Amino acid sequence: MYDLIILGGGPAGLAASVYAARKRINTLLLSQDIGGQVNWTTGVENYLGYQFIEGRDLIAKFQEQVDQFPITQKIGYKAVKVQKLKDGFEVTSESGDVYQSKALIVATGKRPRRLNIPGEVELTGRGVTYCAVCDGPIFTGQRVAVIGGGNSALEAALDMVKIAEWVEMVSLTPLTGDAVLIEKLQQAKNLTLSLEYQTERVLGTDLVEGLMIKNIKTGEFKKLDVTGIFIEIGLSPNADAVKDLLPLTNTGEIPISCGTETGVPGLFAAGDVTNVPEKQIVIAAGEGAKAALAAHRFLQRL
Amino acid sequence: MYDLIILGGGPAGLAASVYAARKRINTLLLSQDIGGQVNWTTGVENYLGYQFIEGRDLIAKFQEQVDQFPITQKIGYKAVKVQKLKDGFEVTSESGDVYQSKALIVATGKRPRRLNIPGEVELTGRGVTYCAVCDGPIFTGQRVAVIGGGNSALEAALDMVKIAEWVEMVSLTPLTGDAVLIEKLQQAKNLTLSLEYQTERVLGTDLVEGLMIKNIKTGEFKKLDVTGIFIEIGLSPNADAVKDLLPLTNTGEIPISCGTETGVPGLFAAGDVTNVPEKQIVIAAGEGAKAALAAHRFLQRL
Repeated sequence: MYDLIILGGGPAGLAASVYAARKRINTLLLSQDIGGQVNWTTGVENYLGYQFIEGRDLIAKFQEQVDQFPITQKIGYKAVKVQKLKDGFEVTSESGDVYQSKALIVATGKRPRRLNIPGEVELTGRGVTYCAVCDGPIFTGQRVAVIGGGNSALEAALDMVKIAEWVEMVSLTPLTGDAVLIEKLQQAKNLTLSLEYQTERVLGTDLVEGLMIKNIKTGEFKKLDVTGIFIEIGLSPNADAVKDLLPLTNTGEIPISCGTETGVPGLFAAGDVTNVPEKQIVIAAGEGAKAALAAHRFLQRL
Repeated sequence: MYDLIILGGGPAGLAASVYAARKRINTLLLSQDIGGQVNWTTGVENYLGYQFIEGRDLIAKFQEQVDQFPITQKIGYKAVKVQKLKDGFEVTSESGDVYQSKALIVATGKRPRRLNIPGEVELTGRGVTYCAVCDGPIFTGQRVAVIGGGNSALEAALDMVKIAEWVEMVSLTPLTGDAVLIEKLQQAKNLTLSLEYQTERVLGTDLVEGLMIKNIKTGEFKKLDVTGIFIEIGLSPNADAVKDLLPLTNTGEIPISCGTETGVPGLFAAGDVTNVPEKQIVIAAGEGAKAALAAHRFLQRL
């Protein structure tokens, strides 16, 4: 039995790992990957301490900082269930591997939200993608659509105007992202903006051949002639494994106190999987540090 | 009139500056210095992204990131009063300089309570430190003193018995912290407890070479042979300027919601000056980012 299990290897889980290791807590880090959502980011300009750094380079920095400590890491581990024991917690993976600990930090982050329109699931990986950073270059010289109006959609569109022949940006609302990104986007010469349009259907059989959208005010339909569709409409929390342990918020997040407590003694949560007000790398890192220090205090009092 | 004034140039204020600037908010940064408490830290090993960095180098990184943006900075500005106007706030400095803004973020941090003994100021950063969490590992295998009898001193001593060769704990009073922490401390094999001793003088010229203490009952002097001195007699929040605007906690901190709201519309607070559960650079940076995004949302709704 470990003193502490940290579930998740994004900025929150890695910050928690550093803080737990420095407190000499006997810690196990369980995660599907290292870096979490940072893996889908091209360049990071708002992590305090780095004026500009590629997402993968920032992850490498985080990872080398964790790797200097003797904490056990099981990467490629997909937790599906967390159960409460009398004196701790038990985590079970998809493949049935079980680990136990006295305290647990859930830092499992978020996954991209789907449009839930016909054709979307069928054509995922065949033109429909949720990661402009990962898949962008595949669509070099093609016509693509970017769906969404927030920062991640703006960043995806800014990446794609450099790569694609033409970018159709589609948002249900006016653009809500950072002014600095909106200004940059307005300079693009190969972009059409369709605001207050909803997506109706992904067209195509084997591969994406287009996207049907509809003006929410006039009801007018428009067919976008694209071969790639980048869906950037937000994220869903990865909180399924703990949903029997505590009530989630109505958006499926783990509700926490300002100190990362979940209300279940010994169970803490940090970062994007929680109802913390903003989803940012530096915020998740701060929350992960809080969670490790809270877990340390809990373990000291046992 | 500015849209936003950020009071304080430590990690919280600088993170807020980066986030505000990226939102193109017309921002004024007012601070006595750049870096705040990070200036008193020897080496930083727990800021996610830097395995080891000197405090001053980390501040330089933060500063260059802020300096790339066109936000106005007045450094050397000591705010003494914040007043509520009809549509915003007015800040007045010690020297009478007045600035106004629609929204305000207070990120003025804390100052350590000092022992006020000879050698203390001269050897700060040269063996004298006010942060065991930050600087503890630097003293691996050395003999150190921990000054104080409350929870932060006990936690510092508990951390240091695992790291240092020997820990000399010195308190003016009997130990006042949590029993569970005191019990744990009593199990340590490499700790001497000097209760009812007052500190007299830090010894050393370039680096700490010892600490002179005095028994307050017998008047007997004792020289402690240590190279590190952890002063953990508490921190004072720099919240005087806003004390007429809102009720402070009983330790003088600004009480905030998890989203950095103070309850006064347009007034946000972030970092160590608030009742956020832990005082750490990465946590303060995360809180500063939250505050800027909250202020942005407030300004957008005006």
